[in-house]
Amino acid sequence: MSPEEFRRHGHQLIDRIADYHANVAQQPVMARVQPGDLLKALPDQAPQTGEAFADVLGDVDRLIMPGLSHWQHPNFYGYFPSNASLPSILGDFLSTGLGVLGLSWQSSPALSELEEKTVDWVRKMVGLSDNWSGVIQDTASTSTLVALICARERTTEYGLASGGLQAQGKPLVIYVSEYAHSSVDKAALLAGFGKDNIRHITCDDSLAMDPIALQAAIEQDLAAGLVPCAIAATVGTTTTTAVDPLTPVGAIARRFNLWLHVDSAMAGSAMILPECRWMWAGIEQADSIVVNAHKWLGVAFDCSLYFVKDSQHLIRVMSTNPSYLQTSVDSEVKNLRDWGIPLGRRFRALKLWFLLRSEGVEGLQQRLRRDLANAQWLKEQIEQAGDWKVLAPVNLQTLCIRHEPAGLAGEELDAYTQAWVNRLNQSGVVYVTPATLQGRWMVRVSIGALTTEREHVAALWAHLQQVVAA
Amino acid sequence: MSPEEFRRHGHQLIDRIADYHANVAQQPVMARVQPGDLLKALPDQAPQTGEAFADVLGDVDRLIMPGLSHWQHPNFYGYFPSNASLPSILGDFLSTGLGVLGLSWQSSPALSELEEKTVDWVRKMVGLSDNWSGVIQDTASTSTLVALICARERTTEYGLASGGLQAQGKPLVIYVSEYAHSSVDKAALLAGFGKDNIRHITCDDSLAMDPIALQAAIEQDLAAGLVPCAIAATVGTTTTTAVDPLTPVGAIARRFNLWLHVDSAMAGSAMILPECRWMWAGIEQADSIVVNAHKWLGVAFDCSLYFVKDSQHLIRVMSTNPSYLQTSVDSEVKNLRDWGIPLGRRFRALKLWFLLRSEGVEGLQQRLRRDLANAQWLKEQIEQAGDWKVLAPVNLQTLCIRHEPAGLAGEELDAYTQAWVNRLNQSGVVYVTPATLQGRWMVRVSIGALTTEREHVAALWAHLQQVVAA
Repeated sequence: MSPEEFRRHGHQLIDRIADYHANVAQQPVMARVQPGDLLKALPDQAPQTGEAFADVLGDVDRLIMPGLSHWQHPNFYGYFPSNASLPSILGDFLSTGLGVLGLSWQSSPALSELEEKTVDWVRKMVGLSDNWSGVIQDTASTSTLVALICARERTTEYGLASGGLQAQGKPLVIYVSEYAHSSVDKAALLAGFGKDNIRHITCDDSLAMDPIALQAAIEQDLAAGLVPCAIAATVGTTTTTAVDPLTPVGAIARRFNLWLHVDSAMAGSAMILPECRWMWAGIEQADSIVVNAHKWLGVAFDCSLYFVKDSQHLIRVMSTNPSYLQTSVDSEVKNLRDWGIPLGRRFRALKLWFLLRSEGVEGLQQRLRRDLANAQWLKEQIEQAGDWKVLAPVNLQTLCIRHEPAGLAGEELDAYTQAWVNRLNQSGVVYVTPATLQGRWMVRVSIGALTTEREHVAALWAHLQQVVAA
Repeated sequence: MSPEEFRRHGHQLIDRIADYHANVAQQPVMARVQPGDLLKALPDQAPQTGEAFADVLGDVDRLIMPGLSHWQHPNFYGYFPSNASLPSILGDFLSTGLGVLGLSWQSSPALSELEEKTVDWVRKMVGLSDNWSGVIQDTASTSTLVALICARERTTEYGLASGGLQAQGKPLVIYVSEYAHSSVDKAALLAGFGKDNIRHITCDDSLAMDPIALQAAIEQDLAAGLVPCAIAATVGTTTTTAVDPLTPVGAIARRFNLWLHVDSAMAGSAMILPECRWMWAGIEQADSIVVNAHKWLGVAFDCSLYFVKDSQHLIRVMSTNPSYLQTSVDSEVKNLRDWGIPLGRRFRALKLWFLLRSEGVEGLQQRLRRDLANAQWLKEQIEQAGDWKVLAPVNLQTLCIRHEPAGLAGEELDAYTQAWVNRLNQSGVVYVTPATLQGRWMVRVSIGALTTEREHVAALWAHLQQVVAA
């Protein structure tokens, strides 16, 4: 493909993507395909000779589009928002279009320095002190894995430089809330701690980690001869957006010299609003934080911001320095390969930069406040309606709800809930996520897609009432 | 930004990117900026209010472009090629533009199934049997980390489900060639093995792992009461593209029941050429393989293909299953979150699909053969010239060379080499990578950018001769 053909096809593609965003609201939110539909429709071999771009685009329409669930749909209330804001999409286009790669600073100086600067902009926006430095990782799963490996290496005083975790006499222990994201357990397992050495701390009525139970667990492990290593606290849990209390948790971390990692993948975006900062009061006591700019904030996936206090420790854990990566300026620059797992990196800062420049801090604040208000409005409607319950505090933009007709409880209620949520999702009019809370199925409504306005939330409420009346 | 504004700005951006590719050959290959130039030029805070897109684009021209080293330049001979082919760029645009996310199959059915199918196309293209299944990871660093964690868990019989690596009595040991990529050591350290438990196996004259030394190291560890766990072999090392002999290495792996991971990040692309398949004769004995489709093959970064024999083992090591990710079709589908570290995934298969459809197998084969022939041509020129040496077998498209004027040796020769390579890179006419080989500095010339033709390689040879004559 020549640059001129690229230009022509690129213009075609831009029109399609613009049309997609203009018209996505008319599509069913959830894909209406069956497992294997696309597998069966595609040939079993790559083509021997090149095909016309028009044929590829035709297959996009015919084969791919029907198989999409539409995350950018105004009626998408599933999981958490994964907002691909239009300016950030353009920033990502520039990144891919330039095709430059960060290995060392020298391999793309602007890539490294724009990442350093824009991540620092976000640091200030969310109110973190200048004790923190940040870097872009792909996802919170990876950021949390990096955090727990760094915790492991601090406690073992760089055991990786000798016998690793295999030479550890007394086992290290990780403490997480029972409502921590599944990626925290996964990270602890991948980092080698072992399931036996993960403590799931019970939560209080607000579904937040109970500091008294945390301290008791640490003391019990110490008495048993184990080595408490790290606490992973969550600000804005996935199930309910509950907030682990960082002030007492941080005090415990300091008292027992534990690494404190804060998973604020979701709630971190809200920290650009001063009125939400109560949620991470005490954050400065942490050692590492993850904020997913690719969620509510609006940077096209993937853009997970990982902040650390002790960047020299991170670099010492992650660094590699083979001769073919050495350059004459290494002593003067940040080589971001030493800030995470992968060696190569995309120019992801462009999409963050394009978003911040185009929207400005106030534009982002305004949108997030709209979503918070929509969540409170929906909460009021549901609380006033018969047989409906809001099951957890609405700290952010996510509601946990259940319709509880008289006489239904236990497994009957579960079956009822799952039946109506499946009907609702399969209708294609909205998309919500079923999940369990305290052992029973309920429904998460996660507001915050870019185009979701009050009218959409009002329509959602009407659909909810209709589907249970059906 | 409305869809109509996106359309307008998107067209502007397409024109810029097309112009960039049409004109990149006129730019100096290596950025001519100093550390901190961009940091100083950018404001210290994100803007409070949104700015016009024209201003952002203006700053791209003014601030970003001068700070780029141009990986898509025909005179880029650094590191390994990281080819962002134009069709794959368009595929990535579609991915970012749609903004859909793979968490479960249901969250984007086409994303999961296109990934499964296109990766399987590549499996067939590189001649792997149907005992293999594959998935897209971000980079070889991550793929190798996944491989070594899987090796660890096979040897410990899922130690992660109990005490992890901490409960391991006798330490597990990893075996790598002394010329393995730095990411292999990094992966072993991050996975908790510890530096003491990594063996660097000596190489033969072709700079490939010596199977006799490998077996001796394993036997020595067994005799010492250690537990040999995994071998990481390389097909196409970073320094010289040396080829570890998989047939004897694989036999050793089977004899001692070790996991065999094959890093063919670079050479994997060449396996679409039957005449190159000798390089991984014995590959079917491996347990895991990484092939970076984002290198020579031409998929825009990142697209690292990870193939495994036992996908059920991978899933058991990597799986998480919280209620909010469960769907009614989980038993019938692949949930790709269980095939790697991150939970969320981009629609990366689109850029692979667009490349394979647009170029066809033969188009890709033709381009790779062009590069192999260019490398052989340059090798002939250098071998015929006085004072120049080709220091390692040219198995693929990378040459390791040195100019050795009479009377220069040792550190004097090192200083001489580093001086001329820095002059050459700073001239901006070409970009090559200095590296050490057997303790002495030399220069890697890695041919294979998409637009590099014979005339460019001939010009490179003229520049090399000029720079040492200067």
